[in-house]
Amino acid sequence: MVVLSAARQRALHYAKRNVNFVKLQPKHLEYFNSILQEPCPNRKTVGKILTQPDKIAPFNRDWMNQVEGECPAVLLPTCTQHVSAILKYCQEEKIAIVPQCGNTGLVYGSSALHDEVILSLREMNAEPVVSKKTMSAEAEAGVILQHLQDVAKTNGLLVPLTMGSKGSAQIGGTVSTNAGGIHFARYGSMHANVLGLEVVTAKGDILNMMSTLRKDNAGYDLKHLFIGSEGTLGVVTRASIKLFPYPCSAQLALFRLQTFEAVLELYRLAQEHLAESLSAFEVMDGESLTTTPQEELPFTKTNKNNIFRTGKDYSSAYFAVLVETNGSNADHDMEKLANFVEAAEANPFCAVKNNQNENFEPILSQSLKQTAQLWKVREDVPVRLASAGTTYKFDISFPLDKFYMVVEHFRELLYKNGKFNPDEVLVVGYGHFGDGNIHLNIVDRTRKHSEALDIELFPAVYEFCAAHSGSISAEHGVGVQKKSYLGLSRTPEVIAVMKNLKQMMDPNGVLNPYKVLE
Amino acid sequence: MVVLSAARQRALHYAKRNVNFVKLQPKHLEYFNSILQEPCPNRKTVGKILTQPDKIAPFNRDWMNQVEGECPAVLLPTCTQHVSAILKYCQEEKIAIVPQCGNTGLVYGSSALHDEVILSLREMNAEPVVSKKTMSAEAEAGVILQHLQDVAKTNGLLVPLTMGSKGSAQIGGTVSTNAGGIHFARYGSMHANVLGLEVVTAKGDILNMMSTLRKDNAGYDLKHLFIGSEGTLGVVTRASIKLFPYPCSAQLALFRLQTFEAVLELYRLAQEHLAESLSAFEVMDGESLTTTPQEELPFTKTNKNNIFRTGKDYSSAYFAVLVETNGSNADHDMEKLANFVEAAEANPFCAVKNNQNENFEPILSQSLKQTAQLWKVREDVPVRLASAGTTYKFDISFPLDKFYMVVEHFRELLYKNGKFNPDEVLVVGYGHFGDGNIHLNIVDRTRKHSEALDIELFPAVYEFCAAHSGSISAEHGVGVQKKSYLGLSRTPEVIAVMKNLKQMMDPNGVLNPYKVLE
Repeated sequence: MVVLSAARQRALHYAKRNVNFVKLQPKHLEYFNSILQEPCPNRKTVGKILTQPDKIAPFNRDWMNQVEGECPAVLLPTCTQHVSAILKYCQEEKIAIVPQCGNTGLVYGSSALHDEVILSLREMNAEPVVSKKTMSAEAEAGVILQHLQDVAKTNGLLVPLTMGSKGSAQIGGTVSTNAGGIHFARYGSMHANVLGLEVVTAKGDILNMMSTLRKDNAGYDLKHLFIGSEGTLGVVTRASIKLFPYPCSAQLALFRLQTFEAVLELYRLAQEHLAESLSAFEVMDGESLTTTPQEELPFTKTNKNNIFRTGKDYSSAYFAVLVETNGSNADHDMEKLANFVEAAEANPFCAVKNNQNENFEPILSQSLKQTAQLWKVREDVPVRLASAGTTYKFDISFPLDKFYMVVEHFRELLYKNGKFNPDEVLVVGYGHFGDGNIHLNIVDRTRKHSEALDIELFPAVYEFCAAHSGSISAEHGVGVQKKSYLGLSRTPEVIAVMKNLKQMMDPNGVLNPYKVLE
Repeated sequence: MVVLSAARQRALHYAKRNVNFVKLQPKHLEYFNSILQEPCPNRKTVGKILTQPDKIAPFNRDWMNQVEGECPAVLLPTCTQHVSAILKYCQEEKIAIVPQCGNTGLVYGSSALHDEVILSLREMNAEPVVSKKTMSAEAEAGVILQHLQDVAKTNGLLVPLTMGSKGSAQIGGTVSTNAGGIHFARYGSMHANVLGLEVVTAKGDILNMMSTLRKDNAGYDLKHLFIGSEGTLGVVTRASIKLFPYPCSAQLALFRLQTFEAVLELYRLAQEHLAESLSAFEVMDGESLTTTPQEELPFTKTNKNNIFRTGKDYSSAYFAVLVETNGSNADHDMEKLANFVEAAEANPFCAVKNNQNENFEPILSQSLKQTAQLWKVREDVPVRLASAGTTYKFDISFPLDKFYMVVEHFRELLYKNGKFNPDEVLVVGYGHFGDGNIHLNIVDRTRKHSEALDIELFPAVYEFCAAHSGSISAEHGVGVQKKSYLGLSRTPEVIAVMKNLKQMMDPNGVLNPYKVLE
């Protein structure tokens, strides 16, 4: 008897295989091969197919190792024409196919659940073109975000998207998932920043909507259909993205606050004093730093002013807040930040005393190195927590004033009557406060409480979102993981239109099946 | 024999009546009346129907008096439930219906061409709700943009959309047409700023997608389908819109430049020195000010430095450029502007000498009154030109470096070999340079050359756009006027998907017929 891995079991749990899809046969592989051997126009490259299990393995699991498929072949096209011919064939032959870029998603949106073929865009990574004249970049789907950022920076320009996974995430994926990240509050979503797209539809048609125009109201703006639809309506093959002047000045301050009311107040002060220069406002509660080693936490000059502490006492939550500004004039930005800090220190909500009744002073980063260190503390939080035990991650959003309620609610729920021990099960919240985007993480350090936690958390967390004007998915999308909860964030009429769209674009349902919609 | 008005003839020219639509009968009016007499939930209002020709007349013509329909009835619902019942009935009975808000469009997108019923949203204008906590506004379709701006300002917040027609344009129309305007370059399009929508589909289903969440990736983001689709897929009934801190400081400078290269250079300097504080960069060529009375043009202290002149000599074009900054700190903003002006004066491209070899100094606005005067010069340009003769208006966009080519090209074309006299036929360009959005206007001051100009301009202007990576519609949309040119800006594959969408959403094609798609 074959024992299935937990990841394989999970995949089977999420969806039954659709019997209308054909099983991949040698003739299909031969045909795919003939497509991929066709040399690309303007390039000499040809594509390839991977069929050896060890080569397929890295594509066949999500990076959190939560879901494992039985993908029989990975297709690696090198141009849009390859993608078009592949999708046309899959639609006709009813071959299920999953588009995949950096495979950094958290909702299994680019995972095979059964025997789907994987279409990896990673070889579509020609050097991106950055134009100072149009202040835009043009990149293929497989270009890594960080590389695009580097090329833009060389030209004095900024890519308005950045996030922890920038070293692996690829442009096609960031567009298809409407990726968010830490600069969202300043520069907006991919709907705001994608100027043009090239997409291959689920039927194999190439939609060339590439453009660097800022304003273009010639008919329905179809690119928005493909931004955030997680590769279920079409495959993004190229994008042009709006760039911004690279900021001459980046300032970073770290605050410690004692109450959530103080966080709200600090944000109000940031809007007032920093306004157009504010580029990030990130919140971590004290509990979320429990698993960060003490020596990696930043200090002010005296130990007494340690802005962090490990927070075993869950009842006295505190918050660490990173406030970043980006601007064109360092003197102005530092002055704005100084005014802001002064206002915060004078504010009765925001002032925090230590045991010796001294003020905790905010840390103002003094160097690029210190800035990197402070950001690393924030970026490491999800990684540290994930390695500290079995971690339940919820990426949800709320109106600003309700941002932290969900954490308090689940602490109350899980700790009351000694149901779970706060030392064993962490309930923490951190995230992009400026966007109302909180990452609720529940970490079972014993790795023993899965069954009991499953019952407590699902669907309770998502129902809590629905009951408090929140969304079940802020930035990670729906993928496989959240599709059964979609009805909590969207009305039946809205979901019906989504399904009509999917049916219209992909009549045989072969493109990224089992995702987003049930 | 009935003599048709020019506007009526034009309507007939644009489209033949679709014979599948029923002619409105008394029983239909009775049914509409029964719907509109149904009291709205949460309000005591009931809707009404206008059928008297004099009452219908203002709805039955676009504001430029270019197109006149034969609308038999105007429906004035007061709530979403009315709109839903009306559209459900129209879809079933095949009654053609045109949604209309402020009727300020320029492409006849809200005009009846034949005997369509008009659905006016103007009575859906409950007082908008502005929230400082969520930094957003919620407004019904019929709320006038300027009113929303005023309510937001009272709360210290800014609506990121503004334009000349703000006193008449209504929220539903601005969303449906993805309206642009002068602050687009700073704050982005409606795709960037609409947080939530309520829409009634062409089949009468209510899609409640209202939300104030900044980040929400729960499934396909359907609101984008209705932003910019000009009321052909559904009727926007409510919107929530992102607001920004109201700027404490607004600076305005007016430059005179001699060449288009200088405009490009000035823009580069603005990006460098003003960066995040830049809120508008508007360009008018000298010719576009020909019809502005001399006494209304602003002066610097000495007449010698008059920054404007009437530009009869078309070969020596010059440009007036309005540069606006919005920020949170007046001292910083003024210093940035001063650095910018200094850099411009030191720049060999941007320096302009008068006849006495003195520099034309830029005008820096010294008061709110002067700011209003300077903006009025810009806002009046389209109105002045329209009243100076028969005016051909083209709202098109190009990559920045190609912004002005279209004006030069058509001057060359129209004036060569004395085909037209520059005193009789003006060829001017002005617009939102930061967005690459130029308004090419051709004014026949004699009102005699229509026939000859028609031949020269159509489809030549739109073909020029297509040939130079431009769009046939920057911000005004397609409506009726540009639908036969859509193929110049969109590929057949893209148009095919648009048509599938229209078919899916509106199977009988009753909602805003004859618009956008042929």
